[in-house]
Amino acid sequence: MTLSAIHRARPRDPLPEALLGELRARLGDRLATSAAAREQHGKDESAHPITPPDAVAFPTSTAEVAEIARLCARDGVPMIAFGVGTSVEGHVLAIHGGVCLDLSRMNRVLAVHVDDLDARVEAGVTRKQLNRHLHGSGLFFPIDPGADATIGGMAATRASGTNAVRYGTMRENVLGLTVVLADGRVIHTGGRARKSSAGYDLTRLFVGSEGTLGIITEITLRLHPQPEAVSAAVCAFPTVDAAVRTVIQTIQLGVPIARCELLDTLTVQAVNRYSKLSLREAPMLFMEFHGTPAGVEEQARTVQELAKELGGMDFEWATQQEDRNRLWQARHDAYLACRQVRPGSRAFTTDVCVPISRLAECIAATNEDITRASMPVALFGHVGDGNFHLVIPIDETRPADLEEAEAINRRVVSRALEMGGTCTGEHGVGIGKLDYLDAEHGDAMSVMRSLKEALDPRNLLNPGKVIRVRDS
Amino acid sequence: MTLSAIHRARPRDPLPEALLGELRARLGDRLATSAAAREQHGKDESAHPITPPDAVAFPTSTAEVAEIARLCARDGVPMIAFGVGTSVEGHVLAIHGGVCLDLSRMNRVLAVHVDDLDARVEAGVTRKQLNRHLHGSGLFFPIDPGADATIGGMAATRASGTNAVRYGTMRENVLGLTVVLADGRVIHTGGRARKSSAGYDLTRLFVGSEGTLGIITEITLRLHPQPEAVSAAVCAFPTVDAAVRTVIQTIQLGVPIARCELLDTLTVQAVNRYSKLSLREAPMLFMEFHGTPAGVEEQARTVQELAKELGGMDFEWATQQEDRNRLWQARHDAYLACRQVRPGSRAFTTDVCVPISRLAECIAATNEDITRASMPVALFGHVGDGNFHLVIPIDETRPADLEEAEAINRRVVSRALEMGGTCTGEHGVGIGKLDYLDAEHGDAMSVMRSLKEALDPRNLLNPGKVIRVRDS
Repeated sequence: MTLSAIHRARPRDPLPEALLGELRARLGDRLATSAAAREQHGKDESAHPITPPDAVAFPTSTAEVAEIARLCARDGVPMIAFGVGTSVEGHVLAIHGGVCLDLSRMNRVLAVHVDDLDARVEAGVTRKQLNRHLHGSGLFFPIDPGADATIGGMAATRASGTNAVRYGTMRENVLGLTVVLADGRVIHTGGRARKSSAGYDLTRLFVGSEGTLGIITEITLRLHPQPEAVSAAVCAFPTVDAAVRTVIQTIQLGVPIARCELLDTLTVQAVNRYSKLSLREAPMLFMEFHGTPAGVEEQARTVQELAKELGGMDFEWATQQEDRNRLWQARHDAYLACRQVRPGSRAFTTDVCVPISRLAECIAATNEDITRASMPVALFGHVGDGNFHLVIPIDETRPADLEEAEAINRRVVSRALEMGGTCTGEHGVGIGKLDYLDAEHGDAMSVMRSLKEALDPRNLLNPGKVIRVRDS
Repeated sequence: MTLSAIHRARPRDPLPEALLGELRARLGDRLATSAAAREQHGKDESAHPITPPDAVAFPTSTAEVAEIARLCARDGVPMIAFGVGTSVEGHVLAIHGGVCLDLSRMNRVLAVHVDDLDARVEAGVTRKQLNRHLHGSGLFFPIDPGADATIGGMAATRASGTNAVRYGTMRENVLGLTVVLADGRVIHTGGRARKSSAGYDLTRLFVGSEGTLGIITEITLRLHPQPEAVSAAVCAFPTVDAAVRTVIQTIQLGVPIARCELLDTLTVQAVNRYSKLSLREAPMLFMEFHGTPAGVEEQARTVQELAKELGGMDFEWATQQEDRNRLWQARHDAYLACRQVRPGSRAFTTDVCVPISRLAECIAATNEDITRASMPVALFGHVGDGNFHLVIPIDETRPADLEEAEAINRRVVSRALEMGGTCTGEHGVGIGKLDYLDAEHGDAMSVMRSLKEALDPRNLLNPGKVIRVRDS
C-alpha cells in the first residue's frame, strides 16, 4: 500500500466510550489517550506518515494482554502490538485505529537455563537488555538487527541482521511462544526440547506473522555459547563486485563466518562522517569470526586469501573488544549515517534477498538504479545471506522524492523476484511490502488468507498488515 | 490411538466405481487395487496392524497428484501420501480407507545449484539417491534418519536423525515446497533466498504436517559443503550416565560435533551380533566430527578429554571412510539389531526428546522402566539433541506384550513432558502419538484444529493422523 493509499483507508469508528472506561478501570494510568502518546505509537522508523491508534495500553502481564484482547474482540476493535517502534515497514501504524498494546513494560527475563542454552523472556525485553542479563553466563543471544528492538517485535517480524549468516534468524532461534489469540485465549507453542515432531509448527507460524495472527507475549529463545575467540576485520575492495565475490566464495567454501557486511563507497563516506572513522572510501567488507583461537585464525586466513585474490586492500584487524564495538556500532549506525547524507530527510529502505549466486549481478544492476537516482542512495547489507538494503533519503516535502523511491523499490523487488529471491529478507511486510506478496507467492497467498481467517476471522489483529482481508 | 482402537474405527465406504474408472483411465497400470499392492501400502515399520487403502495410485508429476486430489475431493475420498513406508508411527495406515498416493515414481532430482548450496527434488527422491547424485559436487545433504526414506516423507514428518545436532532437522533444511492442497490446487511455498520475512511461514507449516494439510510433491533443500575432514570415534563408558554427561558437556561447550549417538549395553550387544563387530559391551558413544583438519582434531581432543574425565575407555578412531561407513551402518542397523534380540518380534519404539539438562535424569529413570520390563528393551539415540529411543520387541501373538509396551511408552512420555520435553523428537505423531498431544500442547491444539479445518475442511488428507477432527 502506498503512503497516499493509507489516507484513503476506510474511515475509522471511534473507540466505544464503554470500552475506554473498562480499560481505564483495569489499567488506570497505564491507558493513555493523549495526542502525544498516540502519535508516539503511530509511527516507526520508516518514512510512512504517522497514523496514531485511538488509545495506548501498557499491559504488564500475559493475563492483562488477554483481558484487553477479550474486551477489544467483544467490541470489534483493532489491536496493534507495539514493542519499541523500530520497525521500518509501517508495522505498527494504526491504519484502522484501535488499541495499541505497548508491551515494553513486559520486560522481565523470566528464566535463563545455562545448561540448556535457552531463556524465556517477556515480549518487551530488548536484545541488548537480554545480553546484559546474560553477562557472565558464558552465553549470548546472537540475533542483532542493529536497533535495540524488543524480542517480541523481532519474533513478530522474523528479524535477523548481522549474525544471521552463522546463527540463523529468529525463525531458527525461537523455541517456543506464549501467544494471546484474537479472542483473548492464551496458548503456548513449542517447548524446550531441541527438536520435536509433535504436530503443526505453530511457533514458526507466529514468528513473522507481525501481530496479525496473535500477540506474542513471551518467547523461549535459543542461546549460544560465547565464542572462545572473536576477531573482526575490515577490508576495502576496488569494486562492489570484488567484495561480493569474496563473500560468495567464503560462503561456498563453508567458512563459518559470523558476520559479513558490505558497505558501498557512499555508505563508507557517510559512516566515516557520522561515526568519526577514517576508513578508506571504497567498497568495504566488515567481517567477524567466532570460534576457538585456532579456528578463528584459520577462518580469517582463508578469507584474507580469498580477498587478496580479488583485489582486497588494507585488511585490518580489530582484535580489542572496544575496537570491535566501535566498528559494529558504526555498521549499525550506517542507517542513520546514510540519512545524514541529505540532512532533514527520512529514509526509505529496500530489503531484498537473493540466492547468493545472483547477488553480484543483482547488486550490479541495482547500482545502475542508484546512478540514475536524483538523490544520493547508499547500499549496504548482510551479503553473506544474499540480503542488502538501499537507503533512499527522501524529503518529505517533495512528493516526487517518494514516488522516485517507490519506483526504485519496485525495480529492485522485481529484479530480486526474477532471480528467485524475496521482496523482504528481514524487515517484514507491514504495509510497505503488501503489494509485492502476490508476485512472490502466487496462489500460496490464498492459503495465507485462509490461515488469517481461521485465526482472526474478524480481522482485528493488526488489520491491513501482511495480508489484505476483505476491506482491510 | 491404540492398535485395538484402529479396528473400532468408523466403517469405511467402498471407493465409488466411477472414481476408480476415472483414475484407471488416467493412470492405466499405475493404479493398483490388488490385495498385495494394497497390503504393501497399508503398513510401515511400526508394530501397528496392516490397514490397507482401497487403491494405490503411482503419479509421476505434481499435475497428476493434483488431478487425483481433485477427483478424490469431488467424491469425498481420503488421500494418503506414501513414500517408501519407513515411518514408525502408522502415518501411512489407511484407517479410513481411500486412495494411497505412492510418490516413489516422482524421483527426479530437478536441479542442483552448487553455488547456492541448494537443490530441488521430487518428493520420491530418497536421501541416499540425492547424496549419490551430489557425488563429486562438493556438497551433501546431511539429514539422516537411518532408513533410506524419501525426502517427501522426511519433510512430512519433520525427520532428523544422527546429524541434526550440527545440521538441524528438516525444519531447518527445507527452503521451499510444492504442495497439492485438499482440493487439488497447487501452491509453492518459500523460495531460494536464505531468509525471508515475506508473510506467513507456510513451508514450516507443511513440514511436519504428515500429509494432513497438503501433499508435498517437490522440495527445495539446503545443501552443505562436504567437510574437508571427517573423523569418527567410539568410546565406551562405565555407565550410561557417564556417557550422557560427556555429551551434555560437549554441547554446553559449543563443540560443533556432527553426530553424537548413545548406545546402551544391550544395544551394543545386539549391534555386535547383528553387524559382526566386537565393541566392548558397555554403554557407548558413537561420534563424528566435521571441519577443517585442524578443526576436527581440536574438537576431537576436547571431547576426548571430557570423556576421559568421566571414565571413558577405549576411545577409538575410525579415520578411513570404509571404517566410518561400517560404524554408521551398524548404528543405523541398531533398530533391526535390537529386534533380533527377540527373534520374530516387531519393534515398538519410543521417541521422547528433553532439554539436555534433564537428559541424564530422564534416561536414568527410563532405565528403571527397562529393568522392570518383561522383555529385553534397548535404549539408544541422538543424545546431542536430548532425543532417545527405546526399542521394545513385542510378540504380536501376545496382547500382553503390546499393553506392556504401551504402558512403558506412557511412562516415558509423561516423564519427558514433565521435564519440558516432547512426546516425539523426530518420528512424528501418526496414530501412535495422537493421545499425547493434548498433554503436550494444551489449548494450542485448538489452533492446530483450526488450521486443519481451514486447509482441509472435509478431513480428506490422511484423516485420523496428527489431530482428531470430529469423527476421525
